[in-house]
Order: sequence, then structure tokens, then C-alpha cells
Amino acid sequence: MSKKQLSIGLLGCGTVGSGLVELVNRTRDLLRERSGVDLKISRILVRDADKPRPGVDRALITTRPEKVLQNGCDMVVELVGGMEPARSFIHDALAGRKHVVTANKALLAADGFNLLRAAAQHKVRFGFEASVCGGIPIIRALKNGLVGNQIQSLAGILNGTCNYILTRMEEDRAEFPEALQDAQKKGFAEADPTLDIDGHDAAQKLKILAELAFDGQVPAEAMQVDGIRQITADDLRTARELGCVIRHVAAAEMIDGAVALRVGPALLRASHQLSGVRNENNAVLVRGDAVGEMLFFGKGAGSLPTASAVLSDIVDIACNKTMRMPITSRQLSTTTPDHSSHNYLRFPVHEPSAIGPISGILERNGIAVQRAAATWARNGHDASQVKIVTQSCSERILEKALHDVSRLPVSAGKPLRVPIAE
Amino acid sequence: MSKKQLSIGLLGCGTVGSGLVELVNRTRDLLRERSGVDLKISRILVRDADKPRPGVDRALITTRPEKVLQNGCDMVVELVGGMEPARSFIHDALAGRKHVVTANKALLAADGFNLLRAAAQHKVRFGFEASVCGGIPIIRALKNGLVGNQIQSLAGILNGTCNYILTRMEEDRAEFPEALQDAQKKGFAEADPTLDIDGHDAAQKLKILAELAFDGQVPAEAMQVDGIRQITADDLRTARELGCVIRHVAAAEMIDGAVALRVGPALLRASHQLSGVRNENNAVLVRGDAVGEMLFFGKGAGSLPTASAVLSDIVDIACNKTMRMPITSRQLSTTTPDHSSHNYLRFPVHEPSAIGPISGILERNGIAVQRAAATWARNGHDASQVKIVTQSCSERILEKALHDVSRLPVSAGKPLRVPIAE
Repeated sequence: MSKKQLSIGLLGCGTVGSGLVELVNRTRDLLRERSGVDLKISRILVRDADKPRPGVDRALITTRPEKVLQNGCDMVVELVGGMEPARSFIHDALAGRKHVVTANKALLAADGFNLLRAAAQHKVRFGFEASVCGGIPIIRALKNGLVGNQIQSLAGILNGTCNYILTRMEEDRAEFPEALQDAQKKGFAEADPTLDIDGHDAAQKLKILAELAFDGQVPAEAMQVDGIRQITADDLRTARELGCVIRHVAAAEMIDGAVALRVGPALLRASHQLSGVRNENNAVLVRGDAVGEMLFFGKGAGSLPTASAVLSDIVDIACNKTMRMPITSRQLSTTTPDHSSHNYLRFPVHEPSAIGPISGILERNGIAVQRAAATWARNGHDASQVKIVTQSCSERILEKALHDVSRLPVSAGKPLRVPIAE
Repeated sequence: MSKKQLSIGLLGCGTVGSGLVELVNRTRDLLRERSGVDLKISRILVRDADKPRPGVDRALITTRPEKVLQNGCDMVVELVGGMEPARSFIHDALAGRKHVVTANKALLAADGFNLLRAAAQHKVRFGFEASVCGGIPIIRALKNGLVGNQIQSLAGILNGTCNYILTRMEEDRAEFPEALQDAQKKGFAEADPTLDIDGHDAAQKLKILAELAFDGQVPAEAMQVDGIRQITADDLRTARELGCVIRHVAAAEMIDGAVALRVGPALLRASHQLSGVRNENNAVLVRGDAVGEMLFFGKGAGSLPTASAVLSDIVDIACNKTMRMPITSRQLSTTTPDHSSHNYLRFPVHEPSAIGPISGILERNGIAVQRAAATWARNGHDASQVKIVTQSCSERILEKALHDVSRLPVSAGKPLRVPIAE
């Protein structure tokens, strides 16, 4: 097999960047054998040149982006993250006819189509496997493995931080703040965890997957996004009594030519394919018209798993320089379907006796109450709580009933509403 | 994007072949948009030209292989199956500088390296995603998605027939012959089910996966292969009492530079990632040094799922004609490691009272008996049975103890030994 030299300019040497340096060092011979590609990292952009970086050749380090972007490398790997200067770096690299690989989900969700179009215009390739679900080759599966399928739906646990926190709350019966702290201590949550726990990180990833799966652009504002801040240990206990776990699920489906997208907590029954996904793991369920239902499970983040995905793009591009535009410019229409499901509802109330009037409003709206319980203020709740499990009911009707409940004088805040998925 | 015409000569129009024709017809526009490839099936080889084939253009049908192999198509898709004439067809196609796509696991397991080498010599590509696990893109994951990983182990439910039968025995409390009949009725088992239920089909698939994962040739005779004929409804009941299910598992791992391979039934605890795989589904667990543990789950067989995998290879080759040799000629050394595990043992005996001497032999060999029970001949057994669950013990020592037991006059046949996996 012919050997191809490939030199890489690396932008950023944080968690994933240093993982990539380690992985390239240790797999160089293996990759040469497997793919005929001889990889070399030729320059590394960092913010602080003096920071000790074990295993990284100091001679490659620079703090000046142009030293990477204007150097003679074949490919630029962008691991700086965020919007700017990452976006400008990538556009500069593409304009300089360098292939680009990135793990930057925020940038892709915001501007993926323009970046891909720029790559196509400059006849170079653009890889982003690492942007969703770390080491799980889900982008590749959608682009290549399932290319002959109309994708009907996607549902995934796309945020490892949320999943780790929910697992800790479930298994250690911890409250949210405590579980978040544990996640931060273990490196599974950022110092500012907002993007993760409010669902925006999962929403970005869902947008990237949905655009690939459904061949068009998804308007970000079409997504209903909820996080997990509201979930309490008591909710998880109730879920357990119902034979369920609570997971943060990002889901997209095609309904009569329009895409429905939703990100938020869900109660999953034990038989649900995503219910067994624990800790910082990720998983994606894909339903294609030819293959049926398929599950991909693995580590969704972390230094080496993400670097593994970056490396798979690097090798792929080294072996095959033909650009294929995986996303079209078509704007997908979106829809908010009126799904029916059982629901878990929790209402903050001034008086536990509110259980009567609340159940009454639900029943008057035709929503059958399967279980109802009231608790006095405790367990980290500021107010008393009324918890209700409904029979299967229409979302629209439930919204209307919740609006009616909110007007009761005894209501003490926004209720939690979590659908129960089979 | 430039449009590429690609004409396909199809060998075989059975379950998968007719699925491919259907899929190409219905996704032609989609594929043109997604990949710029315009697919056309130009010739179809069949055995019986008069058989009605709804949806298949009669003008394409031929019974003469040379009409396909010597026609001007760009690619030959071999879905005839078996060794000959499939092997000769493929060699002829490669020699004629046509790309080849196949779903033929038996041929690949027997002769994959030679076929791949022939493709490389003729500078054409050879795709075999459909040979293992139907629609699950596991070949692609090992070759591309995990290219930067040393694979440490693989374990999979690779045979949908075995899994369907075991699921039926478990859920319907059916005996093996009854469950097999049901599988045959539903099309999940062949009229001659030997290859599937004796484990050879799973062994062929494991060989293909292991050669990709571990970068070398696996001698077929290195594999220990057991099937599921011996398993009874009573075994499944005992498994359930232990909080386990029985699954037919094909596993390979790299231990100190040598590969250990095993195919056979295993008791899996509920926490095991493969325990939830039901009916005709397949799943593969892969552990890579960078990505950690990853699971791929989906339909492992069937017309459209397998055709979906064939189609993914077709599009991949149409977009990228560079041949990469995914398997090396290196002979892997193999090993039979002395793993320790808990075990479920069932001994056919002339007298239930054999429970005493058998337990005694195990204990004298240092194997702690955790549970023991004896039953009179019934439940489809010809003999009385002694069932024993051992504590964790070395395989070697257990083999020796089983040999000692076989020499007891009360022994009435070969015992069943199923390891219990965590």
C-alpha cells in the first residue's frame, strides 16, 4: 500500500487536544499499517505556552494562530471550541485549501451549513464526527452506514453531564445540587454547567444529527428545550415506584414531511432501550425505514473517546479527499405534534389540600388521574407538592389543564411535567 | 455536486437481492441528492427466470452469469451465497476490474483475505458490510470509526436465529424443538437450521470481525464453537431463578498478543449489556483502548436491513474508489485463556442421587458448589438431571472435574456447561 504523509495543524491543546496528541503518538504505527497514512502533528496552537504539557513536543507549541493556519500542513484540527475565534480559524483554514476536522458542536449547530458549503467551495473536506457523542461513530452511521434509509426518528441521551447527574440522584438518592457538585468534582460537568443542565448542549447535538438524518436545515428556535434543574430526588423515587427511571432525552421525528424536535427529561420504563444508559454514557436510537430500530451506545465525551472520533475523521480524509456535502440547504418545516402519553406532574402548592382541586381540573379536562399524592414542604422543596400520574392524554389538552391549574390561588409556581415513554 | 452514474450487476435475487432492488427503486432520488450517485441495476442473475418477482423489471433478468459478469456494469453485487459458484463469480468480477459488494459471510470467513487481496491487485474495491449483523454498520465502525483504537475485545449476539429461539424458550417457556419450529415458521430459521443453531454462522461472523479488529488472520480451527441444541426450557427457568438470561454469545479478546475466541451459550446477568437483546436482534459490544466500551444494536438479518448494508457499500464505493486493504496477511496467534467464572452445570444421570458424588468431586477439586438440585427424567430430558451452580472457578480445573464426573457409573452423558457472565 502506498504511504501518504499527512501533516496536521492543531488548534487547541486542552482535554481533547492533548488526548489527540497522545493517541496520534501511540497509534502512529498502527495507522500506518491500517490505512497507509503517516500522521504528523506539525504545529499546536495554545493560549499559554508555558503550561506544562507532558507528552507534547514543546517545539511544536505556538501562541500565534497564523503559525498554524499559514503553515504548510494538509489539515487543520480545530479543538478551541466556542464561536469565535474558532469560526474565523476554520474559514481561514478552508480558504487556504486545508481540510478541517472539528469537535465544535456549538459552532456546527449555529453555522454548520455555511462551514460545509465553504469546504465544498474550496474543494476540501470537513469532518465533525467528534461533535456529537464523542467516540460513538453516529455521524458516520447516519452519513454512510444508513445512507439508503429514510430516517424516521432519532432519540438519544446526548448529554453525559445530565445523565451522570440523574444516575447519581437515582442511585445515591442525592439531590440535584449535590449530584452536580459530584459531577464537577469528577470532571463530568463544567464550572459553569448551564449549557449542559439546561439542555442546550443536547439541543445543539440534536440539531446536527437531525439535519443529517432528515436532509435539511432545522431552525434552532423550532426546538422545545428543557433541562434537569427542576428534577428532585423525590421525583426519581416516584419514577422508581412506577418502574421507571428519569433520563434527559433529545428526540426528533419526521411526521408527514415536518420535523418535530424536543429536548427534556422523560420517564422511561425499564423496557425502554435508553433506560439502561447510566453515568456519563451516551446512546442514540435511530429508526430507519429499511433497517428498523438501531442503537448506538458508548462514551459520549472525555479526552480519548473524543480524540478517537477526531482521529477517525483525520484518517478518513487522508484516504479519501473527495468532498461530499452531507447537509442540504433545504429548510425543513417543523411541527409540534400532539402526542399522547402518560405523564408525571408535580405542582408546587401553598397547601397539600390542593390535591383535590388539581385532580378535579384534570378530570374535568378529560384527563384520568392514575395516582395522586401530596407532600408538605421538605426534601429541598420550598413549597408543598402535589404529585400526579395521568393516564395517556393529549399534550394539547394537558397544556390547557395546566393553564387552568396555574390560575388556582393555591398554586405556588410552575409545575414539572415529564412525559412517560414506553 | 457532480452526478455519477453507477451501473450494478446483481448476482442473486432471493431475500436480500429482492430487498436491494426494492431499496434502490425507492431511494434512487434520495441517494442522488445525498451522494451525487445515480444508481442503476443493469442485470440480475437468477436461477429460475420464470419465478414471479413483483417490482423487478423482467427485462433485466438472466440465468446466464456471463451476461452479468461480462456486461459493462461498474460493480457486481454478489448475493448468491455459499462457496461456489459465488467465489468464482467474485474472482471473475474482480479480474474484470469491477468493484464487488457481497453479503456472503461463509465465503468471507473461509477466504476473505484472498478476495481482498485480489481486489487490491485489480485496484477495485470490495465491500462486505452486509456479511455481519445485517443493517448494523459494525464493519464500517471497526474499519473507520474506531481506526485509532487498539481493539481489546468483542462480544456479540451475532446469530438472530439462536437469539430468537432462546427468547421464545424464555418468554413462552417453550422447549427447543417447538421454538425452532416457530422460528422456521416466521422465517427466522432455515429449513436446515444446522449452521445457525450449532454456532457455525456466529463463528464465521466472529472470524470476520476479529480479523478486522485485531489486524490479522484467525485460524478457524482456533475457535471453540458450541450451539444451543442442548439448552432446555428448564435451563432457562434455572437461569431466571439466578437473575440471568441465556444468550448465544460470540466473543473474541486480545490477551498478551494472542486472540482468544469462543462461541457458545452463556448465562448473562440482567446488568450485562447483551442481556436485553431479544428476538431476532443482534448486538456487538466492542472495547477499544481509546473509546472504552461501545454497543451496536439492531436487526441482524432480513431482506431490507441487509439490503441497507449492501447499499451503504455501493454508495461508499461509488463515492470513493480508492482501495484500502482492511485485513493484513499476518497470522494471529491464538490462546485458550484459563478464565474464571461462575458456571451453570447440568449432568444427565441414571439416578438423581448422583447429586452427592458429583458435588463431592467438584468440592474435592476445590470448586465451591453454590446451588445443587436433582430432577427425575421429565421435561423433555431422557435422563434424570443434576443441576449445579458453582462459585467462580478456573476453567481448567472445572474441565478436570468434569472429566472425573464422566467416569462415575451414574453419569448418563455429556454434561452441559454454561459460564455465567457478569
